[in-house]
Amino acid sequence: MQIFQTSLELPAFPRGYHLVTRKIEEACDFLAEIEAGILHVFIQHTSASLTINENADPSVRVDFRSHFDVLVPENEPHYTHTQEGSDDMPAHLKAALLGNSLQIPITKGSLNLGTWQGIYLCEHRNHGGRRRLVLTAYGSSR
Amino acid sequence: MQIFQTSLELPAFPRGYHLVTRKIEEACDFLAEIEAGILHVFIQHTSASLTINENADPSVRVDFRSHFDVLVPENEPHYTHTQEGSDDMPAHLKAALLGNSLQIPITKGSLNLGTWQGIYLCEHRNHGGRRRLVLTAYGSSR
Amino acid sequence: MQIFQTSLELPAFPRGYHLVTRKIEEACDFLAEIEAGILHVFIQHTSASLTINENADPSVRVDFRSHFDVLVPENEPHYTHTQEGSDDMPAHLKAALLGNSLQIPITKGSLNLGTWQGIYLCEHRNHGGRRRLVLTAYGSSR
Repeated sequence: MQIFQTSLELPAFPRGYHLVTRKIEEACDFLAEIEAGILHVFIQHTSASLTINENADPSVRVDFRSHFDVLVPENEPHYTHTQEGSDDMPAHLKAALLGNSLQIPITKGSLNLGTWQGIYLCEHRNHGGRRRLVLTAYGSSR
Repeated sequence: MQIFQTSLELPAFPRGYHLVTRKIEEACDFLAEIEAGILHVFIQHTSASLTINENADPSVRVDFRSHFDVLVPENEPHYTHTQEGSDDMPAHLKAALLGNSLQIPITKGSLNLGTWQGIYLCEHRNHGGRRRLVLTAYGSSR
Repeated sequence: MQIFQTSLELPAFPRGYHLVTRKIEEACDFLAEIEAGILHVFIQHTSASLTINENADPSVRVDFRSHFDVLVPENEPHYTHTQEGSDDMPAHLKAALLGNSLQIPITKGSLNLGTWQGIYLCEHRNHGGRRRLVLTAYGSSR
């Protein structure tokens, strides 16, 4: 088994859910060297997150934004962590609900995603800025 | 370290939460060859998911269904992705909340789950059909 | 590549969200031997969970408790799994929302967490008792 690791800084995205599958694949040229393995994608932030969901119809990503805003509204009276803006505490909670790392199987040199699966960057802040990922891939040699 | 990878097609399950620990173990005969490692279970779909929870009392799985239907109801006025049926957008959101992959430690040739832990297939569609998993295990040799 | 595995029993924590980054690092003296790799942290329970979130202001952890109690209240009329106490079924649901394992990159012998990231033990029971973790780290040699 062999292992590769790199980092990737994503550009600033607006608040919402964004397909970043291609950007991640492009940063991982070592995928081609792995016969069977795993790609681990880790986001080094606590107010943005990663998930895998439908890669085709953009309306799914619109509804992700609406529904997570329902599950975790701004300005709830029970919030005490309010000094960094009304979008901050909800961003921490959404990040925890969606998670900060993904593991994706690698098969014959490529990500073995389902037909309709894509990687979402979930930007929960109004002005989150650039987001840093650590990408680690490991597996058997081709 | 060594690595094994296979796929498993689960039969169609009704909407709800289903214990599939044994099916997954049976598909992974290579577990017996691993002294210390990890099993990665990945579902190649965006409207079904995987989680680990109580393996004993089936009422837990009934309540999972009820409560996730409360957290993500059908026919919300803010949904715009509605063409594939009223259970479709909620299925995508539930899949994101629960997650599409599991990592379980392997110790001395077996899954090192806690006493009460079992693997759930979470079927969020009314007629989801068969679901495909990619199973990857790696670790030291026994 | 090499792999290390150990277990760690955390002391009983009160219901709530607790920073345990240092306890986990201390149990993983093998991190220093890994140049590039992954630490997998797995909790062997179904009513406590693990997440990564802000490590600085404790008010974030207070708000995690409040908001997860809103998302998953006690004594909901649709709960049928009620014999183990009013905090039990909500604990299972919260554990599923937050997840039972973490994967963290290891770089040059240390966890490669973001500046503001810490590991939370999420104790969802009123009297959960000690909690057992399985810690598995793998990667290239330093």
